[in-house]
Amino acid sequence: MQRIESHASYGGVQEVWQHESRVLGCSMRFGVYLPPQLQLGPCPVLYWLSGLTCNEQNFITKSGIQQHAAAHGLIVVAPDTSPRGEGVANADSYDLGQGAGFYLNATQAPWASHYRMHDYVVDELPALVERQFPATGLRSVSGHSMGGHGALVVALRNPGRYRSVSAFSPIVAPSRVPWGQKAFAAYLGEQREHWREWDACELIATARERLPLLVDQGGADEFLTRELQPELLEQACDAQAHPLLLRRREGYDHSYYFIASFLAEHMAHHAQALQAK
Amino acid sequence: MQRIESHASYGGVQEVWQHESRVLGCSMRFGVYLPPQLQLGPCPVLYWLSGLTCNEQNFITKSGIQQHAAAHGLIVVAPDTSPRGEGVANADSYDLGQGAGFYLNATQAPWASHYRMHDYVVDELPALVERQFPATGLRSVSGHSMGGHGALVVALRNPGRYRSVSAFSPIVAPSRVPWGQKAFAAYLGEQREHWREWDACELIATARERLPLLVDQGGADEFLTRELQPELLEQACDAQAHPLLLRRREGYDHSYYFIASFLAEHMAHHAQALQAK
Repeated sequence: MQRIESHASYGGVQEVWQHESRVLGCSMRFGVYLPPQLQLGPCPVLYWLSGLTCNEQNFITKSGIQQHAAAHGLIVVAPDTSPRGEGVANADSYDLGQGAGFYLNATQAPWASHYRMHDYVVDELPALVERQFPATGLRSVSGHSMGGHGALVVALRNPGRYRSVSAFSPIVAPSRVPWGQKAFAAYLGEQREHWREWDACELIATARERLPLLVDQGGADEFLTRELQPELLEQACDAQAHPLLLRRREGYDHSYYFIASFLAEHMAHHAQALQAK
Repeated sequence: MQRIESHASYGGVQEVWQHESRVLGCSMRFGVYLPPQLQLGPCPVLYWLSGLTCNEQNFITKSGIQQHAAAHGLIVVAPDTSPRGEGVANADSYDLGQGAGFYLNATQAPWASHYRMHDYVVDELPALVERQFPATGLRSVSGHSMGGHGALVVALRNPGRYRSVSAFSPIVAPSRVPWGQKAFAAYLGEQREHWREWDACELIATARERLPLLVDQGGADEFLTRELQPELLEQACDAQAHPLLLRRREGYDHSYYFIASFLAEHMAHHAQALQAK
């Protein structure tokens, strides 16, 4: 495990680390913001899951996360979006393969040997973070687009593991939209009954924990009607009386300009749940 | 003049425009943030000058400027750092030619025909901005590194034109450091008497306006002792009793993580000078 970047930021430090992932079978990078409050003792951790085409850099360079993490005393960990490297299967498209891990455990060749982002994000990475940094063991999770899907799914699949969950412009029903259908068919195979356990709208029906979902969705998002369809999440939550706060932000698109504009509210939500500050 | 990007951001809009520059003889892009206060009437403009290798994207995607511009009701204009394109002279290095215009008017071949960033930033661009957007005509200027040099120089050379000036990690004495010496020799020729009028430390001696200089400099900046040497600006200001607030920020480097950490203070300074809000 090696630190490859370190930048003072808002009184804390933004770092990037590289390590060999046992779960993924490749070298991985993640960003970690260490807030100034660590001088007083351990802090809880927010995990951020990024969207298609992103790596560990996008969120830490474009979102302005550091100011909010410093304000609330949160460690923020931002992993890459898939396994990477020469020995790792890939595809000639931005929405499958490297950069598009979809936070699931693949079962199909040639993906199954490396594409286990669920286990990486839920188990291996937190264990490593909690060994390496002074973290309290309390965790929350958020993400954007494919990473919003990831945040909802890892929270719904792992009751008790996260104190809070939120998402920006998430893919809420991957089984029913083109991005998800393409990825699930490749990673999980054509049998749709296996898709359910990776689909937030399906997982709501069997959720053992009523963790409130906080979701922001831009009204001018170019992927709104084809890939995102937040009304499907609304319907799924309504049917189960699962707590959901879905906010439509008129005029906002799918970019980091949207995330940055509303990140303060998500971080306040997570900080409250984590009893930070 | 054509709008090529538009993103809702903090209640306003972050746009990118492209236009044909008469001064530079090429097509140019700039970012412009339009704050929500424009619904109530015209707003003043802060010009941001970026550093070596940057274009119009770096500042608008990495600094978090939009939240501060929205808080204070400022339009923020971020131009590219040089003329660009196939017909524009270039060099095989990051610190000369395209991406490295140094905010001066070149006099030497092959640069003189396009490299007139001073006149572009001081005259052509503001005229265009004030025609196209509801701007009050009040202007301030800031920048980073090569752009910090640019901000200090355009303010010192043009008394009365800017209400306030600030800089992050500026090249304060280009005549005396490698980056500046290389660029000035190429753009202005070997006769050093021509370099003085583009060197902030030299311009302090003949400044007709005592505009206070606000400068932040990271103490862990990798270019501190070779290229930046803020003590030279301190000495030049001391000798002329020119007002300077120079803050050394221990542990901070040359990156946008540094700029983002202290941008709020610069924007409050400019907003006060511009009597915005």
